[in-house]
Amino acid sequence: MSFSLESIGIKAGGKYETIYTTMNKAGEMDAAPIGLKCLDDYAVLARIFEGSKTLENIKETGIFVVNITSDPSVFARSLYGNLEPDEFVKDDDIVYMKNADAYFIALVKSIEDKEIGKDHVNDGAKFSIVNAESIKIIINKPGTKALNRGIFAFLESLVDYSRIDIIDDEKKDEYIKKFKENERLIDVVAEDDVKEAMKDLKERLIEKGVEL
Amino acid sequence: MSFSLESIGIKAGGKYETIYTTMNKAGEMDAAPIGLKCLDDYAVLARIFEGSKTLENIKETGIFVVNITSDPSVFARSLYGNLEPDEFVKDDDIVYMKNADAYFIALVKSIEDKEIGKDHVNDGAKFSIVNAESIKIIINKPGTKALNRGIFAFLESLVDYSRIDIIDDEKKDEYIKKFKENERLIDVVAEDDVKEAMKDLKERLIEKGVEL
Repeated sequence: MSFSLESIGIKAGGKYETIYTTMNKAGEMDAAPIGLKCLDDYAVLARIFEGSKTLENIKETGIFVVNITSDPSVFARSLYGNLEPDEFVKDDDIVYMKNADAYFIALVKSIEDKEIGKDHVNDGAKFSIVNAESIKIIINKPGTKALNRGIFAFLESLVDYSRIDIIDDEKKDEYIKKFKENERLIDVVAEDDVKEAMKDLKERLIEKGVEL
Repeated sequence: MSFSLESIGIKAGGKYETIYTTMNKAGEMDAAPIGLKCLDDYAVLARIFEGSKTLENIKETGIFVVNITSDPSVFARSLYGNLEPDEFVKDDDIVYMKNADAYFIALVKSIEDKEIGKDHVNDGAKFSIVNAESIKIIINKPGTKALNRGIFAFLESLVDYSRIDIIDDEKKDEYIKKFKENERLIDVVAEDDVKEAMKDLKERLIEKGVEL
């Protein structure tokens, strides 16, 4: 059984907010919130920082699970520390979240070590680009869609558009700044329909005399 | 057939991004992107500005439809103007979106006219508070969830938390400003689990010496 990633709302070009579960060879389980970039129906890409258990485990085993959830507590607790042992399910050489809305097993194709340039917040930090392939998708809640921030960034800019004629210059500068931030975010994470809608919105704002 | 609103991911206390479809007595159809506040399993509240066709139609007919979709083009086009005639379906005294993931029919209980105070962006603008009750829910795509911005505002602040120790003071001030904006947004729109997670995150930031 091997659906395409689109069955859980994961589309080529989009970047999603997901929880990675991994295990080392000694069987120690770990969960962490990490973004997932989708390349096509089965191929995915992750950028994972050195020093994280997720990267260590992936390098050791060559396999990981991407869990889909919208539970804020899961994102928070897996960032602050780890999920509780009884929130994991071990199945042979993989581990997944018991309460995931859906999850898929990813088999590593390649790992490339990188270093961030000096002009960035994470000055000189090391990370790896992990290319992987989804080999099995399990859907626990029908209709599950992976979280994508694109539509919300777009809706924020859309609301601002409807107010642009009635605000003063100071507010307008703020809106322009927010628009540019949302534009950058959408460029990185959004699905095609959102990218298209944002491009059209930008043209409408420029027509209204907004300098973008 | 009358499910609770929770069947389409609409929970008490949350505010959702939705499309309202309405019709006047002459049968002219209109669609507009308007927020929906959920009060309990069936009761909802909308704040709608005067001058909009949606408010005119609701005052004329006492009925409207709330459509659930995540299609950015629908939000955009219904804001810029109107949807195309063939995107609507007329059914007796109501009209809904043909391609909605789900929709529900709302019967007006009360309408209260209001005016915004002078310190706000929409200086002196008039609007109405519409209280209504969901009388029928139709689900076209199983698993549909109404869009709620809360989880994304939370995830943004959560990412910032993980970076707070490695950034300079200027970046820290920006993060604090963004945190406060997200906190306000979550207070207005989010579901309880997100509100709880944000409160906990704030405490952790304060423990780290961040002034919030």
